[in-house]
Amino acid sequence: MTRQIGFNAFAMNTVGHQSPGLWRHPDDRSAHYRDLEHWTELARVLERGVFDGIFLADVLGTYDVYGGDSTASLRAAAQVPINDPMLLVPAMALVTEHLGFGVTANTSAEHPFPFARRMSTLDHLTRGRVGWNIVTGYLDSAARNLGGTQLPHDQRYDHAEEYLEVVRRLWEESWEDDAVVRDAASGVFTDPAKVHPIDHHGRWFDVPGFHLSEPSPQRTPVIYQAGSSPRGIGFAARHAEAVFVAASGPASLATTVARVRAAVAEAGRDPRSVRIYTKLTIVTDATPQAARAKYDDYLAHTDAEGALALVSGWMGEDLSRHDLDQPLADVTSNAIHTYASAYSGVDDDGRPWTVRDLALRAGIGGLGQLVVGSGEEVADEVQALVEQTDVDGFNLAYAVTPGSFVDVVEHVVPVLQARGAYPTAYRPGTLRHKLFGRGDRPARRQAVLTAGAGR
Amino acid sequence: MTRQIGFNAFAMNTVGHQSPGLWRHPDDRSAHYRDLEHWTELARVLERGVFDGIFLADVLGTYDVYGGDSTASLRAAAQVPINDPMLLVPAMALVTEHLGFGVTANTSAEHPFPFARRMSTLDHLTRGRVGWNIVTGYLDSAARNLGGTQLPHDQRYDHAEEYLEVVRRLWEESWEDDAVVRDAASGVFTDPAKVHPIDHHGRWFDVPGFHLSEPSPQRTPVIYQAGSSPRGIGFAARHAEAVFVAASGPASLATTVARVRAAVAEAGRDPRSVRIYTKLTIVTDATPQAARAKYDDYLAHTDAEGALALVSGWMGEDLSRHDLDQPLADVTSNAIHTYASAYSGVDDDGRPWTVRDLALRAGIGGLGQLVVGSGEEVADEVQALVEQTDVDGFNLAYAVTPGSFVDVVEHVVPVLQARGAYPTAYRPGTLRHKLFGRGDRPARRQAVLTAGAGR
Repeated sequence: MTRQIGFNAFAMNTVGHQSPGLWRHPDDRSAHYRDLEHWTELARVLERGVFDGIFLADVLGTYDVYGGDSTASLRAAAQVPINDPMLLVPAMALVTEHLGFGVTANTSAEHPFPFARRMSTLDHLTRGRVGWNIVTGYLDSAARNLGGTQLPHDQRYDHAEEYLEVVRRLWEESWEDDAVVRDAASGVFTDPAKVHPIDHHGRWFDVPGFHLSEPSPQRTPVIYQAGSSPRGIGFAARHAEAVFVAASGPASLATTVARVRAAVAEAGRDPRSVRIYTKLTIVTDATPQAARAKYDDYLAHTDAEGALALVSGWMGEDLSRHDLDQPLADVTSNAIHTYASAYSGVDDDGRPWTVRDLALRAGIGGLGQLVVGSGEEVADEVQALVEQTDVDGFNLAYAVTPGSFVDVVEHVVPVLQARGAYPTAYRPGTLRHKLFGRGDRPARRQAVLTAGAGR
Repeated sequence: MTRQIGFNAFAMNTVGHQSPGLWRHPDDRSAHYRDLEHWTELARVLERGVFDGIFLADVLGTYDVYGGDSTASLRAAAQVPINDPMLLVPAMALVTEHLGFGVTANTSAEHPFPFARRMSTLDHLTRGRVGWNIVTGYLDSAARNLGGTQLPHDQRYDHAEEYLEVVRRLWEESWEDDAVVRDAASGVFTDPAKVHPIDHHGRWFDVPGFHLSEPSPQRTPVIYQAGSSPRGIGFAARHAEAVFVAASGPASLATTVARVRAAVAEAGRDPRSVRIYTKLTIVTDATPQAARAKYDDYLAHTDAEGALALVSGWMGEDLSRHDLDQPLADVTSNAIHTYASAYSGVDDDGRPWTVRDLALRAGIGGLGQLVVGSGEEVADEVQALVEQTDVDGFNLAYAVTPGSFVDVVEHVVPVLQARGAYPTAYRPGTLRHKLFGRGDRPARRQAVLTAGAGR
């Protein structure tokens, strides 16, 4: 049986997202990110294309490593200005029926008690179509503006583990399924005996009370996570239902996917129960020639400085201090980490990158796989990638929006559908059920979570 | 010239809001608060009725004073379960063009840096139709679940003052009007020289950086505030553009309105530049008889215990320990404070209330003015109230939703419009411009704020 592939749209409530400079392209409307209609139109396009969902990235700071401040980022609109992602969801939900919404939220930004209510509210309003991409924060500028310094990497994960325990207990343990009885005769809306305080007292949080929201369709949103460090992969293996992985090329991607699946199995879970996505940028058109011309046109609109501002932030290394032709290995030993990207700086064929290679590759859709061609060509490459790497689907970054998504829906999706490699309709029900076909609620909770729960 | 009156809808992302028990009435759909369509339908009704806005109250805790826990609140659905209010706005904004959105947010719930971005995002997405009702928190249960104890009342206002200073500086001082140039030729999206860190270092917050959002139509949302304590009125007098006041009857309301206007003048502002609303519940129908029958029917559906659970929370006094016929004055010396209500427990004619009086009065629309009658009768009373008290408008609490609002739009609004006492169309532009007719931006900032600003 042909393997089914899933697409997510990779977007952000900002200009350009991962394609700094492309806002100058006449087809790009990303600078309309402030208009609701920009997003509702995109949502309709994606649902027409049977996308799994729209995945909304976020940062709560700016890229200020390149040149030592935010000058380059501001000039190029490299993820600044940036608005809140969560507030886009209700409007997009109103005009769609099936599309999923993956929302990025940082465990160091908000206390888990009100955050749990926000996600429950979204799960109610979307009728169970919301996911949460857990990030632990990687921009120092965000931590500073929240009035502190960033926790060391490993402590961030300790903090995130406790954060997740608190919100999961609020979502899963506080209200029993039949707590809301809504019985007009007796006048009882909620049976108080079936609502339980979580009585959490931990290292980072004290939350004695019960959840403020009644149970939502999924209760716990679908958990997304990315993280290429050993600690990050461990976290994903225990908690994530969808994982984002990244690599320099197909061979290293295959290795990463295998590593994640092994870690999931080691955590006592079915390695096929986790959906693994990697980032992909598709430039496509009716013919191979038109697609290549389109790519060259996009390339002419990229902004190298903006791209290096992003990459410098991801690496924590100021690339403005180096010659563009310097080999990357001479510049830094830092790996390039972001929740969407992790690169060794070496191609699959062993050729080491220069700083310029980085800027070029990060210019359209950020770092990640890039495919240029007709619908048939792209479908071939996408299927080959799945074959080679065992990845389940793709987070599609855009060159221009909504154009890049419209192109995929027009040229690529029908080809994959005709080959039986892409869904032609949505499964009914919640996002979790659409993705995994096993009901609305998370699979039985892992030992690590139930251990501390006992009531 | 006949004085123009403004209406807000007073609502909450919960069941029943201020009418515990009315969820059992066949006309009430408040238990559909989890559905987007419930809210978009309401928004359309309100815009048809040329309401100033919908005012969304919120609490981040439960009413657990009555009986010493949340049993009574849960049973009666007295503001629990309760979802996040902010996430309703984008969907309602999508289906309306003019309606304003007043969102309650607590200064002790979220750090001002991400909060400022959320409000800017809403102001962008609504094209400048958002207001912020500043509350400093009054439920101990909320403070406990946020991992601390509530600050003493006066310190809460110190904290809120600094919070407001931080968010206002992010909104007003960080990005110059022409910072976003979006010049394709030069490749400059934002001129970095025109984006300024606020460099705030205060007692409660350190926010060194600049705002993440580009300037929104209003920049600062319209500031709403309620507060009947001397400190609360002082805060409102300095900062608020719309103030909510409450009183037991017209005479005490007139006194309160005069006190607020005097405080505004004392703070160096035009006392007419602040819009003063009071809470009002209207039960109306085509004829006086039908309206009275409707009221009796609603009354039969109220839940006295639920009402006392709310009032006990507002007072901080457990009313379950007292006989219903006891005079209130024997029970407690606490005033009844909420951001929508402040009552002496004595009628204008001097008759002291019993506990039962409280429960009855709080049963439909909570405590506040109540008017029952035909459209003509209600219009008479509303105009008389404005005449006697100098109030500018009303926050309309509902008995049933959307029914109570539909009734007002059908029966009362046309009468007031025919008398020239109510707008027949919206002014163009932002919420601030609609309300005050003086442009999109806040009036020149007060000395108290500019003092510490200097850059």
